[in-house]
Amino acid sequence: MPVNLAPPNPADLLPVAGVRLGIASAGIKKPGRRDVTLIELTPGSRVAGVFTQNRFCAAPVTLCKQHLVSGDIRALLINTGNANAGTGEAGLDHTRRSCEAVARAMGCNAAQVLPFSTGVILEPLPVDKIIAALPEAQADLAPDHWFDAAHAIMTTDIVAKAVSRQVQIDGKTVTVTGMAKGSGMIHPNMATMLGYVATDAAIARHLMDRLVKEIADVSFNCVTVDGDTSTNDSFILIATAQAGNREITEPDCADYAALKAALTEVAMLLAQAMARDGEGATKFISVRIESGRDVAECKQIAYAIARSPLIKTAFFASDPNLGRILAAIGYAGVMDLDVNTLQVYLGGILVAEKGGRAASYTEAEGAAVMKEAEIAVRVVLNRGEAAATVWTCDFSYDYVKINAEYRT
Amino acid sequence: MPVNLAPPNPADLLPVAGVRLGIASAGIKKPGRRDVTLIELTPGSRVAGVFTQNRFCAAPVTLCKQHLVSGDIRALLINTGNANAGTGEAGLDHTRRSCEAVARAMGCNAAQVLPFSTGVILEPLPVDKIIAALPEAQADLAPDHWFDAAHAIMTTDIVAKAVSRQVQIDGKTVTVTGMAKGSGMIHPNMATMLGYVATDAAIARHLMDRLVKEIADVSFNCVTVDGDTSTNDSFILIATAQAGNREITEPDCADYAALKAALTEVAMLLAQAMARDGEGATKFISVRIESGRDVAECKQIAYAIARSPLIKTAFFASDPNLGRILAAIGYAGVMDLDVNTLQVYLGGILVAEKGGRAASYTEAEGAAVMKEAEIAVRVVLNRGEAAATVWTCDFSYDYVKINAEYRT
Repeated sequence: MPVNLAPPNPADLLPVAGVRLGIASAGIKKPGRRDVTLIELTPGSRVAGVFTQNRFCAAPVTLCKQHLVSGDIRALLINTGNANAGTGEAGLDHTRRSCEAVARAMGCNAAQVLPFSTGVILEPLPVDKIIAALPEAQADLAPDHWFDAAHAIMTTDIVAKAVSRQVQIDGKTVTVTGMAKGSGMIHPNMATMLGYVATDAAIARHLMDRLVKEIADVSFNCVTVDGDTSTNDSFILIATAQAGNREITEPDCADYAALKAALTEVAMLLAQAMARDGEGATKFISVRIESGRDVAECKQIAYAIARSPLIKTAFFASDPNLGRILAAIGYAGVMDLDVNTLQVYLGGILVAEKGGRAASYTEAEGAAVMKEAEIAVRVVLNRGEAAATVWTCDFSYDYVKINAEYRT
Repeated sequence: MPVNLAPPNPADLLPVAGVRLGIASAGIKKPGRRDVTLIELTPGSRVAGVFTQNRFCAAPVTLCKQHLVSGDIRALLINTGNANAGTGEAGLDHTRRSCEAVARAMGCNAAQVLPFSTGVILEPLPVDKIIAALPEAQADLAPDHWFDAAHAIMTTDIVAKAVSRQVQIDGKTVTVTGMAKGSGMIHPNMATMLGYVATDAAIARHLMDRLVKEIADVSFNCVTVDGDTSTNDSFILIATAQAGNREITEPDCADYAALKAALTEVAMLLAQAMARDGEGATKFISVRIESGRDVAECKQIAYAIARSPLIKTAFFASDPNLGRILAAIGYAGVMDLDVNTLQVYLGGILVAEKGGRAASYTEAEGAAVMKEAEIAVRVVLNRGEAAATVWTCDFSYDYVKINAEYRT
């Protein structure tokens, strides 16, 4: 059951000028399932992306990276039901053919198309079915199809994930709308997180790579369900330059900060939604590490806590098992960490300091926090100015059930 | 249920000349439970150890490291029921007091005593109970109490772990006997792996640190259940020099190799026993990575596979889910790995090559391998001469049950 995660309201999802979305049924895995999404971008749109570090990256990830070099992207094609990963040379050929088909239909070059796939690994992409569905998707193109698209990209997600925000920049109303799929970095054969955030703001092309990385580092790169990184993970940022604001050309200005804040809020909500919809989740956990030397060590400790099966099963059981949290901090790999000078908080309660349990702590207080559906773990390292937050979910019988029975 | 792991037969456990073991009931956690083990070493014994890298290391680990510097160890004291971890300065004081009490009883210095604790974290060690039990333990000292000791150091282990071997060195019969506790590196509040391997061989003191590290690297450092490293993990190597062999003084000789082989076999069997007895285990999995550039990258990939909850749940379900194995190889962090030139085998069957599923592979073959109680995964990297093997178990409903309900 997703934790405090309502489906998006179609009326809350705002069109982004310059972006049209069209859905079609290609019958990739299930007949009748709407499984292909085509996104058309107006000429002059700027696009940047970050992708999985997995060495077994999927064919579409390889093509996306190549096509982003040219920089003049006009269309995105997303299919669910098949990941086109672990498919070797044939997989690359299939992806190329799908890009060529989109290019013919849209009147652009294949290098101006970004392909994405999510679904079963190790099975050949039924590319002919996808190509056959393109006319239906193209006929469906409309600016207000974000809600449908958020559903069409789902695999085993229980709830669709999409959100919009507006912000004033240079006296203009700028819209940000995003959608994502995935239940963390975890889904089995369906192993993929896909995120798309679009804005109509005008921002210089040379700032896009920087912006997408800055946003990913505090959103999609801060979520884990079980630490399994997918072969297909992709996060794409689109800016269509249709809002009428003066183009943002340097990062040290108020307009850049305002745009980044709005994009980050959307990306964070989408990333958190993945943990809320994590496989078998019954709790949403945020792990914040404060006053570390740098963000890297804060993330390292946060992930050690957020990935630990021992800690996640304790959350599932509502058991304030502090020893497991202390042990994870200790084995995170920050070798000069002084465990005698850090504090650990559960919710607002100081639970550990001076290398052991806080004198003021009572088990009853800890148990009360652990009963909540949303739990905040906070560790204060007292050795610097950096901080980082990671989101995850608990680890339940249903996680084992879902992943043990997934293919059967 | 432990996987193919029989309890030791008392008659198979051979005394090691120069080592006597005594057991006592201190009532640390449960009245009547035999929870204290005293080990007496003959003068001139050489002792070396390797310990947890966890920054929240327990008080006895800190003291062990200090006492090993002096090098002239005469006794070991092990208690179960309390880990004396996360206990700050008071924990160190308690451990010091226990060493002083052993020293008084045995007629040596406190610095000649190595202390070990395993059990609940974050609770004060009931050191007075332990000290009160020392006379009973001392009166029980005998060379043939390995079987009793292997039981007395258990926490949530289902099966006691102890084994003996003999080898001819320099015309003499050398005995090796070891015992261990732990179900991987994982036990919750009982978070600890302890291993003790003793031999009566004569080997120079300056070789002991090297030898214990070499053995640990292919035994206790090759086992994982869920990747949670304990605060108390310790592996101790003892050589009493009672066998009558000419002292081994350099590592490039046949005697060193023969002794190391016998010690390694015992340590490997004990380490494998931990994975066989892993929490909730229904399968024993070995992951071997071959022809890597170095052992480090082989271990890195082996651990990525052995730690993945997705892969471990698939083993539990007997599901030959190859995509999960390929994805783990890809995200292990070997960034220049070419996934198109490696092969993956399940049992003896080639399942993946050239970046995807092997043409010869059939799902039926994979499913047959996955039904076995012992499963071997083998990855051939084709980029060097190094290899490494890691042992683990599957991930079942019972893992969640054991860890969610452990304290309740």
